[in-house]
Amino acid sequence: MAKIAIIGAGMMGSALAFPARENGHDVRLCGTHLDREIIETAKKAGRHPKFSTDFPRGVKYYQIEDVKAAIDGADLIIGGVSSFGVDWFGDTILPLIPGGTPVLTVTKGLFNAPGGKLITYPEFWKGKLGGHSVPLCAVGGPCTSYELVAHDQTEVTFCGDDVHALEKAKTLMQTDYYHISVSTDVTGVESAVALKNSYALGVALTIGQNQARFGVDSEMHFNSQAAVFGQSVIEMKKLLDWLGAGGIENLALGAGDLYVTVYGGRTRKVGILLGRGLDIDEALRELDGVTLESLVVSRRVAKAVREASDAGALNMGDFPMLMHIDDIIENKAKVNIPWEKFTKKAP
Amino acid sequence: MAKIAIIGAGMMGSALAFPARENGHDVRLCGTHLDREIIETAKKAGRHPKFSTDFPRGVKYYQIEDVKAAIDGADLIIGGVSSFGVDWFGDTILPLIPGGTPVLTVTKGLFNAPGGKLITYPEFWKGKLGGHSVPLCAVGGPCTSYELVAHDQTEVTFCGDDVHALEKAKTLMQTDYYHISVSTDVTGVESAVALKNSYALGVALTIGQNQARFGVDSEMHFNSQAAVFGQSVIEMKKLLDWLGAGGIENLALGAGDLYVTVYGGRTRKVGILLGRGLDIDEALRELDGVTLESLVVSRRVAKAVREASDAGALNMGDFPMLMHIDDIIENKAKVNIPWEKFTKKAP
Repeated sequence: MAKIAIIGAGMMGSALAFPARENGHDVRLCGTHLDREIIETAKKAGRHPKFSTDFPRGVKYYQIEDVKAAIDGADLIIGGVSSFGVDWFGDTILPLIPGGTPVLTVTKGLFNAPGGKLITYPEFWKGKLGGHSVPLCAVGGPCTSYELVAHDQTEVTFCGDDVHALEKAKTLMQTDYYHISVSTDVTGVESAVALKNSYALGVALTIGQNQARFGVDSEMHFNSQAAVFGQSVIEMKKLLDWLGAGGIENLALGAGDLYVTVYGGRTRKVGILLGRGLDIDEALRELDGVTLESLVVSRRVAKAVREASDAGALNMGDFPMLMHIDDIIENKAKVNIPWEKFTKKAP
Repeated sequence: MAKIAIIGAGMMGSALAFPARENGHDVRLCGTHLDREIIETAKKAGRHPKFSTDFPRGVKYYQIEDVKAAIDGADLIIGGVSSFGVDWFGDTILPLIPGGTPVLTVTKGLFNAPGGKLITYPEFWKGKLGGHSVPLCAVGGPCTSYELVAHDQTEVTFCGDDVHALEKAKTLMQTDYYHISVSTDVTGVESAVALKNSYALGVALTIGQNQARFGVDSEMHFNSQAAVFGQSVIEMKKLLDWLGAGGIENLALGAGDLYVTVYGGRTRKVGILLGRGLDIDEALRELDGVTLESLVVSRRVAKAVREASDAGALNMGDFPMLMHIDDIIENKAKVNIPWEKFTKKAP
């Protein structure tokens, strides 16, 4: 039996308590300061308020003030914060972790760096660690938390520099429904699964456009979704190539993750609302002002593409879907998907 | 105004009458001997029995005995037969077509050739043409007929050897909702859009498995669909590489087409029934014994992979999803998706 501490009791962090505990480990789920009520509920009812299944028996729950107790003696620390908690995790949690203890984070996203570069969160945290040696691993791949809780067959990728840490995390976490690939291509994995957020919004735009034409309860149409999907695969490949990570495994990871993201969650919702004709402010009001990772990623990647294009490293014209999404989000452009720009000419 | 003859009044052939006629062309829709009732209905009611929208006014309808009149003077012939009409189209229709008249076919599939090779239908027909010079083009890409009829935004690829014929077909057919890429990579386009049929069945298996676990009317789960989707992208890439056609545009076409095929039609249905636990005979009985192109493609590609693997040109172990699909179809294997075979190891 190993000890696994999960810091952050959002849906994904909490979902990972399931395979961890079902494997017989001592699992300590510690909420952030934003998760106070979740931990209260878990302590009282043994359930995450957004899940329809109880946590496995024996999971222990901690409020943030007890984070040191949660971490104490852990063989693996899982970072379960959203991309809005990246700084906090790096500044507050990482320094608490004993050197050599592997960390596995679920946080998805990319930061801009000068000159049109994009850096992954593990890279960002590595910069904060200084001499403190903590093997950073991250999870990518198509996995919605509530389906993991339901034991839907799921395949993800753990990525990191340290193969030993990756294998340890895999051994602790894998089950007969949670299947784990391992990759040392952190840039590739993290970029693929971040990029897909932006393109999922693109696919969802077409759903909203069809709802505007045929009615909100009309049957879904797939030709237009598939056209954006195909274009997204091409643009993701070009972005991954640019990042030096254009191998098929990363692309397939991005495509699979795009597939699942189109069907779940808030990215889909905001895309549909924009597709129906709302502008970004109206769409966010409708969604109660939630902050969306997909919007953050879209802006950052578009910014990087513009800068890299200005520097001659990329051609902005190769990314008509991404740049249109950015235009919708940043400039309240009307949705007008540039279909003809998706077509290819004979050589 | 050009003259466009469509031979075969199935759903896809008939759907192409919409952009063709809306562009103002003289459109002649000619049924095969299997389409007699469709043409009768079209003549009486101006509608395909399976569409909920009338044909555009002015489309002319022909029974097969009048095929010569339909073809007479045509600037473009569209071949609208299914893969079960490939021989008939090659033996009966192609010889009637005046030399130099471009032909655009919607038929999807591949034939086996000796030594584990696969050949496309345009290649097959070219073999039949002998000295008769007819520029053969084909349509691939994510396009369901009823959504084309509904003017859903759609992007397809016309492929063929003859760029002039491709451009002509594109000019005649493109509309503000039917967007056309052009490619001279016939093997790539035709293989990508054929392969996807097999993998769509694979993705649908997981839908059926979840229905078996959670009930037929349960909410769909996407983690497992996405895991098969990602694996399918990897296997399609390897197959396309083997066919010398592994470029991103072909792969994205296959991925987009896979996306749309998971959501429509009989391939999805048979996959779901198999996933629920029926064997292939039971599933086909449930579907009234329809013959499915996806089953034909799966068998043929699996046969080719086995032969190429025996010859050392491919590694059968790289295609666990395809081979499992084949095992289900051919040997009534129980559905048992080899999830762990999908995972990748660190280098």
